[in-house]
Amino acid sequence: MKIYQHTVHYYETDKMGIVHHSNYVRWMEEARVDFLAQIGWDFAKLEENGVISPVVAVACEYKNSSRFAEVISIAVGIEECGGARLKIKYTMTNAQGVLICEARSKHCFMNTQGKLLRLKKDLPGFYQALQESQTKVL
Amino acid sequence: MKIYQHTVHYYETDKMGIVHHSNYVRWMEEARVDFLAQIGWDFAKLEENGVISPVVAVACEYKNSSRFAEVISIAVGIEECGGARLKIKYTMTNAQGVLICEARSKHCFMNTQGKLLRLKKDLPGFYQALQESQTKVL
Amino acid sequence: MKIYQHTVHYYETDKMGIVHHSNYVRWMEEARVDFLAQIGWDFAKLEENGVISPVVAVACEYKNSSRFAEVISIAVGIEECGGARLKIKYTMTNAQGVLICEARSKHCFMNTQGKLLRLKKDLPGFYQALQESQTKVL
Amino acid sequence: MKIYQHTVHYYETDKMGIVHHSNYVRWMEEARVDFLAQIGWDFAKLEENGVISPVVAVACEYKNSSRFAEVISIAVGIEECGGARLKIKYTMTNAQGVLICEARSKHCFMNTQGKLLRLKKDLPGFYQALQESQTKVL
Repeated sequence: MKIYQHTVHYYETDKMGIVHHSNYVRWMEEARVDFLAQIGWDFAKLEENGVISPVVAVACEYKNSSRFAEVISIAVGIEECGGARLKIKYTMTNAQGVLICEARSKHCFMNTQGKLLRLKKDLPGFYQALQESQTKVL
Repeated sequence: MKIYQHTVHYYETDKMGIVHHSNYVRWMEEARVDFLAQIGWDFAKLEENGVISPVVAVACEYKNSSRFAEVISIAVGIEECGGARLKIKYTMTNAQGVLICEARSKHCFMNTQGKLLRLKKDLPGFYQALQESQTKVL
Repeated sequence: MKIYQHTVHYYETDKMGIVHHSNYVRWMEEARVDFLAQIGWDFAKLEENGVISPVVAVACEYKNSSRFAEVISIAVGIEECGGARLKIKYTMTNAQGVLICEARSKHCFMNTQGKLLRLKKDLPGFYQALQESQTKVL
Repeated sequence: MKIYQHTVHYYETDKMGIVHHSNYVRWMEEARVDFLAQIGWDFAKLEENGVISPVVAVACEYKNSSRFAEVISIAVGIEECGGARLKIKYTMTNAQGVLICEARSKHCFMNTQGKLLRLKKDLPGFYQALQESQTKVL
């Protein structure tokens, strides 16, 4: 698994001179999209399989600030994918290895009729890919 | 016609301490949405009539900067709505009446099959509402 | 205390047709800024007093989706302001009273030298205003 | 000169299912920042030289829509850098070579006292780098 990298854009800074905290939620999505593509289950494939995946919750702990033009590495790990929920953890560090942000997101999966899907039972291929990614990441 | 007002959010500022220039394009949309609602043709009504309206072009001239917590007034005027194109002008001023940004947008209108609609012929009610708004605005 | 209201902008929606989840973190800030202004301690006043207030953490639980043009009410309450940390809770509901998002943020306060400030001891006026707001809100 | 590439993020789409038009102004900045870094005059270097560079104007013509996960190539060219103004042109194409957006931006340069700088006279090194880039780009 390749660690996702985000280069901080000028428009992501705020008048404090640092990255506005709301952007980290967007970077989580960037890293998650990249992660799912790497394990062979990008958003397009999920959608083709009639799967909708809303974000159920996000949480960010801001440890240090980041600044314009810095390159932030975002490591993605699966915390839980047993039942209907997928829990993902994100560890963001700058080029000096300083921890910038620790974050988590929860996701559920539904078919187009809005029925909640269980990962292991209803999406076995996706479940297996997630399981295997854990070995690679952790 | 009531002039649309936007209060500058903290997250709209950048490291120069002023509003990032990309946000003005978003404020144009806010003011346009409000304007169309005021003349009785909000986006929902257009969509119900099977009308899709892509933005064809935007242009902004930044005259002065704006800052966090300032209230920006955005006057909307129709520059042209004769044929298939709608041209809108936006004049943004701060509470002291200082000109902040002069902007323009162009829009076209299509039905769900992607066929270009002519405002006067294909959307006469909308065309008339736009015409009448001009008298009120200018 | 007046409840803050946010009208959903078109540019806040995503290809699922609903508000992108990252925007709720921005609405939290909008509601917080409004709340602090209402209790007489807006960002400008804090900055004039040499106080910098970074966001330490945010968490959002997405209960229901919201859509373009909906008006979302965001109630702000103080959960804790005893020591160096301020914890704020946000309850977002749509016009039908449906719970959209429950969120929390943590903040610390520093002087311009980066020294952590204790609310009660170092910012007594601000501390008192926060305390009084609780009676009004809850 | 290497052409800048932007991969479309999910959060950049809107309820029409395409990239929201305001994002192209942000991509222009991304490409401009990358371009200036490539010619050896990144924002940090300009700031170190006491140069502030506000955006004076932007204009976008939207030729075709772009979608989530598409890779957009953004070619940057100097249109004019003779006097106090720098005019930049952006040509955005998708992976199939389809023209997505043609855009322009104007910039001026000031010292920290707000005095307008003339590129050729006041910033000869930067002026020369811009001139040389034209040969490479066009």
